[in-house]
Amino acid sequence: MIKKNLWGLHFPMNAHTAFEHPSNILPLVVGIDLGGTQIRVAVLQGSNVRARVSTLTGEDSAPERVLPRMFQTVEQALHEAGVSLDEIAGIGIGAPGPLNGRTGVVFSPPNLAWRNVPLRDIFVQHFNKPIFVENDANAAALGEYMFGAGRGSKEMAYVTISTGIGAGVIADGRILTGIAGTAAELGHMTIDWHGERCNCGNIGCLESISSGTAIARSANKLVAIGKGQALLDFALAHQDHDRQGVNPVHITARTVAHAAEAGITEAQKIIARAAEGLGFGLVNLLHIFNPELVILGGSVTQIGAPLLEPAMQIVRARAMQVPRDSMRLVIAELGADVGLIGAGALNYYHLQQA
Amino acid sequence: MIKKNLWGLHFPMNAHTAFEHPSNILPLVVGIDLGGTQIRVAVLQGSNVRARVSTLTGEDSAPERVLPRMFQTVEQALHEAGVSLDEIAGIGIGAPGPLNGRTGVVFSPPNLAWRNVPLRDIFVQHFNKPIFVENDANAAALGEYMFGAGRGSKEMAYVTISTGIGAGVIADGRILTGIAGTAAELGHMTIDWHGERCNCGNIGCLESISSGTAIARSANKLVAIGKGQALLDFALAHQDHDRQGVNPVHITARTVAHAAEAGITEAQKIIARAAEGLGFGLVNLLHIFNPELVILGGSVTQIGAPLLEPAMQIVRARAMQVPRDSMRLVIAELGADVGLIGAGALNYYHLQQA
Repeated sequence: MIKKNLWGLHFPMNAHTAFEHPSNILPLVVGIDLGGTQIRVAVLQGSNVRARVSTLTGEDSAPERVLPRMFQTVEQALHEAGVSLDEIAGIGIGAPGPLNGRTGVVFSPPNLAWRNVPLRDIFVQHFNKPIFVENDANAAALGEYMFGAGRGSKEMAYVTISTGIGAGVIADGRILTGIAGTAAELGHMTIDWHGERCNCGNIGCLESISSGTAIARSANKLVAIGKGQALLDFALAHQDHDRQGVNPVHITARTVAHAAEAGITEAQKIIARAAEGLGFGLVNLLHIFNPELVILGGSVTQIGAPLLEPAMQIVRARAMQVPRDSMRLVIAELGADVGLIGAGALNYYHLQQA
Repeated sequence: MIKKNLWGLHFPMNAHTAFEHPSNILPLVVGIDLGGTQIRVAVLQGSNVRARVSTLTGEDSAPERVLPRMFQTVEQALHEAGVSLDEIAGIGIGAPGPLNGRTGVVFSPPNLAWRNVPLRDIFVQHFNKPIFVENDANAAALGEYMFGAGRGSKEMAYVTISTGIGAGVIADGRILTGIAGTAAELGHMTIDWHGERCNCGNIGCLESISSGTAIARSANKLVAIGKGQALLDFALAHQDHDRQGVNPVHITARTVAHAAEAGITEAQKIIARAAEGLGFGLVNLLHIFNPELVILGGSVTQIGAPLLEPAMQIVRARAMQVPRDSMRLVIAELGADVGLIGAGALNYYHLQQA
């Protein structure tokens, strides 16, 4: 896919090319994308997936259940790729945060029953290979940086908007981690200090305004108070909703987007509010990081212009000139593979730094 | 001054000592703190000021007026220190942003009649020495990092609250600059997207809520609508106000702080609002950077507990656990010399990186 400058912003700087490896000279690596639902493993050469295997994380996500399954899935992927452990340079793991990439310890992710698991050391012991652990959003950012829409940049922010809002930042060619590995939680930046409480315990976070969950919540709230009839009718007519527990109809963010497209005013207003929040989030991001590139990924981004155009209008109206003029906004390139490619990229990143 | 952990927060990480130079083995350098009002120049060895000279920037701040005055002030400082140009390692300049530290070009600071002035090249041509240019907040952050409250840290944020709110961030031992040098504008982070317009053109910036100017503005607004009688009486009784133009009385942030201390409710409410904004700003900072250290400087910080305690209460209630537990909040150590020491420190920073 061609890298696109979607919004025609001026881009005056010379990009410092950080990584321009033709994939075929890169060593083979393993990438693991550990999620609450799935363990995905690939044998990769750069962004080239040589084999991939996935398995369910399992309902019992205790480390003593999940770790053996991870080991097994790695063996299986190596087998499918026809590659021995000796032939790979290392194993990169993108795992749910919070975690400390320096120590490889996973603290207590909301979607795994883990607590201070020394993931890196456990893998080193099992495989006797270089092992690199990073939170999933940072790994995805690195994937886009090295092999996706971020190629050739040095200062970039990757923001993925789906159920939640995750992010990873590359500053001067390096992953921004902070002291304990939890930096770049851009989704949990307050933009509305008198707003609603976020799942994280904070108030008025970007995620509580512009995520898919926030869009769906606004819609269902409107229906619940009897003001979303047109939206409800649309959802029922298109059978474009989930059936959930006691709620007869749960309208999804996707339905809201479709309804907005179909001209339903309430839906348009909900998308407009999410877009406005995103705009302020982007302004903050520009003022805080002065990136040359912002890469947007995640399912909510697929709403496209109705979400992104009003957001960029706020950027144009509100951001300071220099950071605004330095920035290009582009859409992520790696799609569903970003987690795997990013996990694999951890190897190249750290082996190059060493 | 002893580095204090004011708020008794837990600090579990080992600090990676980045700079621990005894000052007497460091080379001599020149630091220039270029402001809208004053040009301050020092000959320094580390944080040890060997000689200092200052002069007015002048009402006509065109570069062709200001630059010769800067050259002259440098010569004078060298003369006073009894040091020749040959004996100094380089000249560091902290200048008003926006500017690009990589190229040394000053774009168009609000308080100087400059536009795209290639400050570094002009100084190189004149002095034939290594010249390093950085925006004043970043230089101050570097000063605290190398020679003040930040010694021994690797991930820190410096926030200075006075008329405005400036900031500088050190990430993994390096100044966060962004692609064009304007990163770390933490004062211009929106925390109230439906709030008031900030001077910068954005909406609900931290600076528009928690700066000295914002505190004073709230007070004077209250008086103007007839609701600040006790505050006005206090200001008049203590002659603790500026006389400004058409306004018979202009209440300053300092007066508000004194009035709050004296128990005047309106003043306490104004300080409380600024503190609440600061709290949300700090939460954002923790979520975005996961620093081990936040250093607060600037005159407004002198309000002390009435500002900082409610702010830290918000941090304790709202920030995620890992970044909250990783962070210490301390007060800046370098006082009024931070700009000079920081400008001098640019030399050590860049000469060490090279």
